Amino acid sequence: MKTWSRHNYLRRMKKVNINEKFQCFNEHWTPKVIGELNGQHLKLAKVKGEFVWHDHADEDELFLVYKGILCLDFRDGTTVELQPGEFYIVPKSVEHRPRTKGDEEVWLMLIEPAGIKHTGDVVDEKTVEVCEWI
Amino acid sequence: MKTWSRHNYLRRMKKVNINEKFQCFNEHWTPKVIGELNGQHLKLAKVKGEFVWHDHADEDELFLVYKGILCLDFRDGTTVELQPGEFYIVPKSVEHRPRTKGDEEVWLMLIEPAGIKHTGDVVDEKTVEVCEWI
Repeated sequence: MKTWSRHNYLRRMKKVNINEKFQCFNEHWTPKVIGELNGQHLKLAKVKGEFVWHDHADEDELFLVYKGILCLDFRDGTTVELQPGEFYIVPKSVEHRPRTKGDEEVWLMLIEPAGIKHTGDVVDEKTVEVCEWI
Repeated sequence: MKTWSRHNYLRRMKKVNINEKFQCFNEHWTPKVIGELNGQHLKLAKVKGEFVWHDHADEDELFLVYKGILCLDFRDGTTVELQPGEFYIVPKSVEHRPRTKGDEEVWLMLIEPAGIKHTGDVVDEKTVEVCEWI
């Protein structure tokens, strides 16, 4: 109770159904927070198309795919393709570009520190300053 | 590369298929580490029966169910039942007892700080001092 508000406390004391949370929104590249532990946020996102190249100087970021295929491009020319049920942890300071194939919509879970900007130090039209809880 | 070994670095730079990792072990109540980010471990566990009552003084713990139904008992007499695709975050210092129904085997993902004892301050025959990476 010391480091988080009563409101967050009560929100955290409920179980969360991940599929139900995916039904709560439709925007692309707009992560929604569904849980918080030890300073980390669990977020859901629906994405389509290309995101911006970015890195996070001090934060690792996890991408776990629930639907579709997510591509993570790296500056060395390699790409990691993630199917549903697969995850990848991008270490801090590694530049990456998430994207999808063609017009496919991809559903993701992200784990990263609370308060992080999802575009890293890059401020883009896709940048969301504060992610909404759902 | 400053805070973790080269070995862990290379392990982290690979994608992980969660179902394949579940096939790698059969022991109960013996969490296996499958990923690390920002000081947190992602672990898989197969469980059956009752665990010990315990808490973690300073760490929140996430339980995400992949197969079966997990029950989390609390000292106020309430129980949270988690189906596949549902998670619950037990806040730090909240005493809890994970258990399954009858003889059903339950598959879980756990997220908690690296280095944490899964039995909290309770040392029991089920206590695993250092969780193995798979």
